Amino acid sequence: MREFRTKEAFKTALFNLPEPVRSSVEAATSRQAALTKPARSLGRLEDIAIFMAGWQGRERPCLDRVQAIVFAGDHGVASRGVSAFPQEVTQQMVANFRAGGAAINALSRVCGACLSVVDLTGDGPTKDMTEEPAMSRQECLAALSAGASAVRPGTELLFVGEMGIANTTAASAICAQSFGERAVDWIGRGSGAADAMLGIKREAVETAIRLHTGQCSDGFETLRHLGGREIAAMAGAILAARHLRIPVLLDGFICTASILPFALANRAFLDHCLAAHRSNESGHGRLLDRLRLRPLLDLDMRLGEGTGAAIAVQIVRSALAAHNEMATFAEASVSGAS
Amino acid sequence: MREFRTKEAFKTALFNLPEPVRSSVEAATSRQAALTKPARSLGRLEDIAIFMAGWQGRERPCLDRVQAIVFAGDHGVASRGVSAFPQEVTQQMVANFRAGGAAINALSRVCGACLSVVDLTGDGPTKDMTEEPAMSRQECLAALSAGASAVRPGTELLFVGEMGIANTTAASAICAQSFGERAVDWIGRGSGAADAMLGIKREAVETAIRLHTGQCSDGFETLRHLGGREIAAMAGAILAARHLRIPVLLDGFICTASILPFALANRAFLDHCLAAHRSNESGHGRLLDRLRLRPLLDLDMRLGEGTGAAIAVQIVRSALAAHNEMATFAEASVSGAS
Repeated sequence: MREFRTKEAFKTALFNLPEPVRSSVEAATSRQAALTKPARSLGRLEDIAIFMAGWQGRERPCLDRVQAIVFAGDHGVASRGVSAFPQEVTQQMVANFRAGGAAINALSRVCGACLSVVDLTGDGPTKDMTEEPAMSRQECLAALSAGASAVRPGTELLFVGEMGIANTTAASAICAQSFGERAVDWIGRGSGAADAMLGIKREAVETAIRLHTGQCSDGFETLRHLGGREIAAMAGAILAARHLRIPVLLDGFICTASILPFALANRAFLDHCLAAHRSNESGHGRLLDRLRLRPLLDLDMRLGEGTGAAIAVQIVRSALAAHNEMATFAEASVSGAS
Repeated sequence: MREFRTKEAFKTALFNLPEPVRSSVEAATSRQAALTKPARSLGRLEDIAIFMAGWQGRERPCLDRVQAIVFAGDHGVASRGVSAFPQEVTQQMVANFRAGGAAINALSRVCGACLSVVDLTGDGPTKDMTEEPAMSRQECLAALSAGASAVRPGTELLFVGEMGIANTTAASAICAQSFGERAVDWIGRGSGAADAMLGIKREAVETAIRLHTGQCSDGFETLRHLGGREIAAMAGAILAARHLRIPVLLDGFICTASILPFALANRAFLDHCLAAHRSNESGHGRLLDRLRLRPLLDLDMRLGEGTGAAIAVQIVRSALAAHNEMATFAEASVSGAS
């Protein structure tokens, strides 16, 4: 599952998803009940530990190998003036990632994630979605495969981030198209669009949907008409992770939007994913609500790059530390509840 | 400020609070604006970095020395049957802390905090607050001082936790008394009280307030009539931290209630504190709202011991990593916003 050569191969992958290991879920659940704390008093930490146990297939999950991947891509729609930053910033930021100076570098270091950067800008920007499909079928499959092949087998937790000037516009288009809703409900300020620019973004999304809605017959087509290379790569990586039974922390708006077409096609797709945070990009909270994902964090962040997920890694680390290292009531000779 | 020998000495400490270093706040604010990210896109991480800079008095704050202190104390009111667990659990858990098997041990390790345990159960349980003041003036001063003297100078971030069977009842009484409100609005399930027990808790709080409200003439008196040794110790530690310019992460309901009398007496008292999390104990969200504290986390936890704060340490660590390690636009040759 490292490459999708045909749309059929991709569909087979999307509709044949492995499930967590039931016996590990049960063992971890029993262990939680025996630890020296009132029942359920660690709240979501308990759920996270059990979730990790199921996907890793062991009662006491590990977190030594956390992988972070940032995908970068350029968007044809950027030429319509939908971003506060010029398009060359995508590549400048790739250089910054490689030099170790971006937020995701610092946050990956502190959470113990091994960060790699997959730069898809070399394939050129996507087409302007207001005029033609963003990607050809082959381009979309190549981007999905680039994401899938970047996932390292043996990884114990994965998160993916992105860099791509204009990619909130693409993500908004995916959301509006997927839910059949107005563009205005899904656009936001991205990296800092002023009011006038919001109007341009809305118009771009409306134009693109009007042009392509008839062709968006399934998740793949939505992704290729309205998405971008880095967006498809994120989705491909998250799909590949599922087949490797690697749990995933979803980052912000772009990341969540990237898998929306897959999640709507097969609701079980989200089972290996936790929402790391609720970003300040206006569509993200709405999107999480629609997908019934409750984020772990809400820190007013809206940087992308995987930064929200990087912080949530440490919550997972805490959950596993408590789960793996605490004494049981019996071990510590502590009296139980009456 | 390691000991409060008289109530006057305590009051002097409470009403003469140092402030953050303005020049460091300004330097950190300027630095945030120059880092390679859209303005304000790291949200609360930016606020945290600037907060830490002000209290540590340096543009780039450190986080090598994080101190965690768990205070343990027994409560006379436990004899009225207000807890799901028997009173001996306080001391059993102290043994568990010392053996390294409790949740706070695991979570302190993972967040890099140095944990110490201050066991005040040796002084005996407090008096039953439904019959007499929980502590004498000298006992309350001793507990405040025990907390204050446990804070290590040079600490870069402090959090305090507690263990004390029946201490949610005491914390609820402090809240209801402080705000002049009904007991029922402030009681919750604590470590797992069933419905019938909630009625007993409410009655205990109502009885205690009826008995002592006339004597609760200031924050100190509220604390000594309705609090507990570990509760006063937490408050003493947080007050001492302020005088050492050590920023503090507030844990859950008991911790926040412990400083409520001080915060109401002097609103500036909270300036060196961040609310780590919103616990599932029902009064905590209400209390945070009243104090206008926005928690960093909301993970349905309700364990105490400082566990919520321990997790938030890692958010602070992330905030400082981004603040200290990111490149500026100029350093990375990245174009700015138009």
